[in-house]
Amino acid sequence: MRIGVLTSGGDCPGLNAVIRSVVHRSVVDHGDEVIGFHDGWRGLLECDYRKLDLDAVSGILARGGTILGSSRVQPAHLRDGVERARGHVADLGLDAIIPIGGEGTLKAANLLSQAGLPIVGVPKTIDNDIASTDVTFGFDTAVGVATEALDRLKTTAESHQRVMVVEVMGRHTGWIALHSGMAAGAHAIVVPERPFDIDELTAIVGERFSAGKRFAIVVVAEGAKPRAGSMDFQDGGTDQYGHERFAGIGNLLAVELERRLGKEARPVILGHVQRGGTPTAYDRVLATRFGWHAVEAAHRGEFGMLTALRGTEIEMVPLADAVQTLKTVPAERYAEAQNVL
Amino acid sequence: MRIGVLTSGGDCPGLNAVIRSVVHRSVVDHGDEVIGFHDGWRGLLECDYRKLDLDAVSGILARGGTILGSSRVQPAHLRDGVERARGHVADLGLDAIIPIGGEGTLKAANLLSQAGLPIVGVPKTIDNDIASTDVTFGFDTAVGVATEALDRLKTTAESHQRVMVVEVMGRHTGWIALHSGMAAGAHAIVVPERPFDIDELTAIVGERFSAGKRFAIVVVAEGAKPRAGSMDFQDGGTDQYGHERFAGIGNLLAVELERRLGKEARPVILGHVQRGGTPTAYDRVLATRFGWHAVEAAHRGEFGMLTALRGTEIEMVPLADAVQTLKTVPAERYAEAQNVL
Amino acid sequence: MRIGVLTSGGDCPGLNAVIRSVVHRSVVDHGDEVIGFHDGWRGLLECDYRKLDLDAVSGILARGGTILGSSRVQPAHLRDGVERARGHVADLGLDAIIPIGGEGTLKAANLLSQAGLPIVGVPKTIDNDIASTDVTFGFDTAVGVATEALDRLKTTAESHQRVMVVEVMGRHTGWIALHSGMAAGAHAIVVPERPFDIDELTAIVGERFSAGKRFAIVVVAEGAKPRAGSMDFQDGGTDQYGHERFAGIGNLLAVELERRLGKEARPVILGHVQRGGTPTAYDRVLATRFGWHAVEAAHRGEFGMLTALRGTEIEMVPLADAVQTLKTVPAERYAEAQNVL
Amino acid sequence: MRIGVLTSGGDCPGLNAVIRSVVHRSVVDHGDEVIGFHDGWRGLLECDYRKLDLDAVSGILARGGTILGSSRVQPAHLRDGVERARGHVADLGLDAIIPIGGEGTLKAANLLSQAGLPIVGVPKTIDNDIASTDVTFGFDTAVGVATEALDRLKTTAESHQRVMVVEVMGRHTGWIALHSGMAAGAHAIVVPERPFDIDELTAIVGERFSAGKRFAIVVVAEGAKPRAGSMDFQDGGTDQYGHERFAGIGNLLAVELERRLGKEARPVILGHVQRGGTPTAYDRVLATRFGWHAVEAAHRGEFGMLTALRGTEIEMVPLADAVQTLKTVPAERYAEAQNVL
Repeated sequence: MRIGVLTSGGDCPGLNAVIRSVVHRSVVDHGDEVIGFHDGWRGLLECDYRKLDLDAVSGILARGGTILGSSRVQPAHLRDGVERARGHVADLGLDAIIPIGGEGTLKAANLLSQAGLPIVGVPKTIDNDIASTDVTFGFDTAVGVATEALDRLKTTAESHQRVMVVEVMGRHTGWIALHSGMAAGAHAIVVPERPFDIDELTAIVGERFSAGKRFAIVVVAEGAKPRAGSMDFQDGGTDQYGHERFAGIGNLLAVELERRLGKEARPVILGHVQRGGTPTAYDRVLATRFGWHAVEAAHRGEFGMLTALRGTEIEMVPLADAVQTLKTVPAERYAEAQNVL
Repeated sequence: MRIGVLTSGGDCPGLNAVIRSVVHRSVVDHGDEVIGFHDGWRGLLECDYRKLDLDAVSGILARGGTILGSSRVQPAHLRDGVERARGHVADLGLDAIIPIGGEGTLKAANLLSQAGLPIVGVPKTIDNDIASTDVTFGFDTAVGVATEALDRLKTTAESHQRVMVVEVMGRHTGWIALHSGMAAGAHAIVVPERPFDIDELTAIVGERFSAGKRFAIVVVAEGAKPRAGSMDFQDGGTDQYGHERFAGIGNLLAVELERRLGKEARPVILGHVQRGGTPTAYDRVLATRFGWHAVEAAHRGEFGMLTALRGTEIEMVPLADAVQTLKTVPAERYAEAQNVL
Repeated sequence: MRIGVLTSGGDCPGLNAVIRSVVHRSVVDHGDEVIGFHDGWRGLLECDYRKLDLDAVSGILARGGTILGSSRVQPAHLRDGVERARGHVADLGLDAIIPIGGEGTLKAANLLSQAGLPIVGVPKTIDNDIASTDVTFGFDTAVGVATEALDRLKTTAESHQRVMVVEVMGRHTGWIALHSGMAAGAHAIVVPERPFDIDELTAIVGERFSAGKRFAIVVVAEGAKPRAGSMDFQDGGTDQYGHERFAGIGNLLAVELERRLGKEARPVILGHVQRGGTPTAYDRVLATRFGWHAVEAAHRGEFGMLTALRGTEIEMVPLADAVQTLKTVPAERYAEAQNVL
Repeated sequence: MRIGVLTSGGDCPGLNAVIRSVVHRSVVDHGDEVIGFHDGWRGLLECDYRKLDLDAVSGILARGGTILGSSRVQPAHLRDGVERARGHVADLGLDAIIPIGGEGTLKAANLLSQAGLPIVGVPKTIDNDIASTDVTFGFDTAVGVATEALDRLKTTAESHQRVMVVEVMGRHTGWIALHSGMAAGAHAIVVPERPFDIDELTAIVGERFSAGKRFAIVVVAEGAKPRAGSMDFQDGGTDQYGHERFAGIGNLLAVELERRLGKEARPVILGHVQRGGTPTAYDRVLATRFGWHAVEAAHRGEFGMLTALRGTEIEMVPLADAVQTLKTVPAERYAEAQNVL
């Protein structure tokens, strides 16, 4: 069999572990050939690739990033390229393509699959917002990095009697905020799923101080928004070159809480450290299993499918289902954490 | 409601997170009273306890160990103490008891439950061998510690052309060995579920060297045993005081592989570092959820049950089922890793 | 002997280790009594303190923050309070005061010392800018946190062909930028000691891309400034409440480099995570030694002095000397790193 | 200029950072050529080497081990090979050789230097026992790994009322034991420099329990020995193949303390994890500086010298001096730690 693999979308710890696992399983166990396309879909569209043998994936299991490079997919661009992709697949004699990516990538994968290309997808997102799978690799690492930062910030907040407002990733969903907030014992967790009321948030934090506590930790997902009318939400405007300023909800909340509470509040924007670097053991195992099962699905001819964790098992689920809805934090999960707004 | 909580058995990262969660949920949200028994079942049998309020659990979420202390349970001793326990529960006016522990603890819990005491169990073991739950807290931390050690050892092995034989925990099951071995890319994984053949293991490692590789990493669970007749398995004997020597399967394998391969082999016995210290974010979240759901079950009057992770949900399962069989590594999981013997 | 200890200024990993060491050495070995003033100089001025015995410092060695609390010193306020401080010292029968703090704290300490109070200072700053000592505790932890973040960001930068601009702490000196930049192999390091030329910086980064490299890491100290005339340095202005916007040099450089290079550039502002949380082993040892030697100096009656690391030895140096100049990065240190602007 | 570099002796975090720094400084800044000999002195004696350009050292700064491989030096073997080495140096047109290694390596380096070869040594040992330099790289990483393990073990010891006996590296000197013991707040530290009295050690640990404490941590360097007559020091004997058993002082002390105190005592032998894996930021900076200054010394023609850290400066010291004595822990350093025997 001849398999093409590519990584697409934002960085995510575990990408290399999937690539390595695909190569190990297919080359060693099945005697397949594997090629890797460069920079995601671009590589497929421009037929830019290299051969991946055992040496090519030696030592990459624990390394962050992707040895194949990545790029953000432009859906329209890909739509126009379906025939070109089909041609390259035929020319290269590929029996299967394994794209590893997030929501956008999987939508593109579904498009190609519906056009008849032999696709087995592997879901990837630190945000954990893909509905078909219990968890995606990268999420555990992101939560771990955020939790370690929160652990560190807690002692400073306490010694200096401050509110720390920590902005974590999560544009549409609050999974990282919820898990890191629970893991670090945050006193308020603000998620995109629930537009927040600034009065309510102020009250929660204020009560802690009234109760004699000397500090508070607020975790806020980058995509969190105030409830309509709750807060005069002025963003950062643009600078002299027309670039948007890096205001961010974390900065805004810190300013606002300081003003309302009369306590020092400091923002910390964790940013890209959450999506880079060596994956946790959890993510390496999950990524390795995904890669293994993607190869198996290809060999069984199960195309148009996606690897998914269900309980402790890896199952194959239809690509078409996977891209329909975002997996948001369900209400009952909020109850288990303290003060999720 | 009045709830008693206790921790029993070996150390496990996340115990304090469960205790904290029980107190937060019951005291803050339900207005309950919580007491903690000291040193596991001993505290219940001797009525040795203290009140647990919010201050008592402040700052313990990320701390290893257990603020309540622990001890190993002697089943016979507990059997004789059922009436005593019942008396203390009545005297203290307890509506529920939440024991947090492993297999032995849960068996004891089941015994007390069958005797009519209001028990809600929380499963705990770094070994991950409790059948009713997908995962137990503590396991992720243990795997993380082992993986970090393996990552470190790999570079030394490579620079010095060695075989490193790393013994990880797992008396009856190979979960830690399997996951840390997969996460770190070990070249052979030896688990208790499959008695190993020393010739086969030697061949696997030897092939790497024949193929031009300069090193090999072997992960072995402490409970691994050679297949009958495969190896003259001489243990460490006893010292001058009659204590068993600390030979260990890791040491024995290193000696044996060095002799057979003619390559330097070095043992590393990770030991207790795997079960102590701050829990990973994953374990803190799982432990917190277990504590929360144990309190809810108590309030619903669901006794004789155990908290369990099933997929992404926490469910309650009968204690009686949980203690019947050990969860061993299934055959299909070996296939996903390389060279599990 | 009766000793008062206080911690003042910004948070710094190792403060608790000094406090613990002071108590251990004086209480256990000398039979002294120790009290701790709350929230830095405020505690001394308002006679707000508590007794510190062995139990009070149990378990704090590895913990970030300070159990005594801290506050920023207002020099004028303290100047007015000298007589009040003298009165409290007399009332409490203190034979020595050990203030642990940075430049501002040490200036205040020097003031009190010149007024005749028995002061032994302990230098503290993550910025490492105190001239009298080779190193201060907290610095190693800050560099470690920054380096770990840089390690993580590198893989993302490489996979996505980006410039990462990472802002680290260092208002007046570039020590953290220099060391973390060297440790992580940054491609350009921008420090406050050398106002940078934006054309030169762009050229350095641009050359990497011209040479076929796919990414670049720029480390910039928060206090770095462009050379006069080099860049139209527009800061973030103020928001609707008159608060300064959180623009920051890191954000500005990312915008500017992206515009000039035509490559994606992303800022990461590490912020307070660098000054919180558990200290490294290095900082714990140094902090412990400082505490021990401060007590010894007090017992020898060596007042008006500061503990200092010189090579491998802890020596006592005059407070008056310590506060004269900031220790900036010397020119010969730039040469050892790559591309320090 | 043409420079040869080699790494010799046991593994040590930072070796790759030195190699990288040598190549960066000499190739980029001086326009030199650099070759790397394989597996230490063996590579020089057998003329086994490869060219080291910028690509060859790309991405190795943070990686443990050595890309050049290493082997233990046999002094006699090297003595016989001096003429062979001289021949290879001439054939290869080398102007300088930079061996990176510990005591044995530096003795060999001194031998070759006295025979007229152009040697600039770089000291390397995790044990920190080379007298001419304040610190060697690798030591900080080893202390960090040991301290993290001790932090983890402390919570288990406390929860289970145990004595934990932790054996760390240090065959001849107790630097790692002293620093990790101080950093983790160990209750007794046993070092090779001071043969211990088992009664005294038992008394120190016993007093803790008498004072109501529930646990104790004992750190022991692998080279520690009981005072003559203090303890019937029976080692592990040999197994059926004549291999020495892995008894170890840590195991022996645990057995002995358990017997004498009547408290559970558990040994943990940290072993090779202390000398592998990614170096700390401290070690990377020191290693980078050593590499840079070694190249500068070569260009100045300062041969027969060794790079050394003195305070904050890197200085060159004579190789002949460096190998005369081991740097042991001085008595005044014991005083700063608690209960160093």
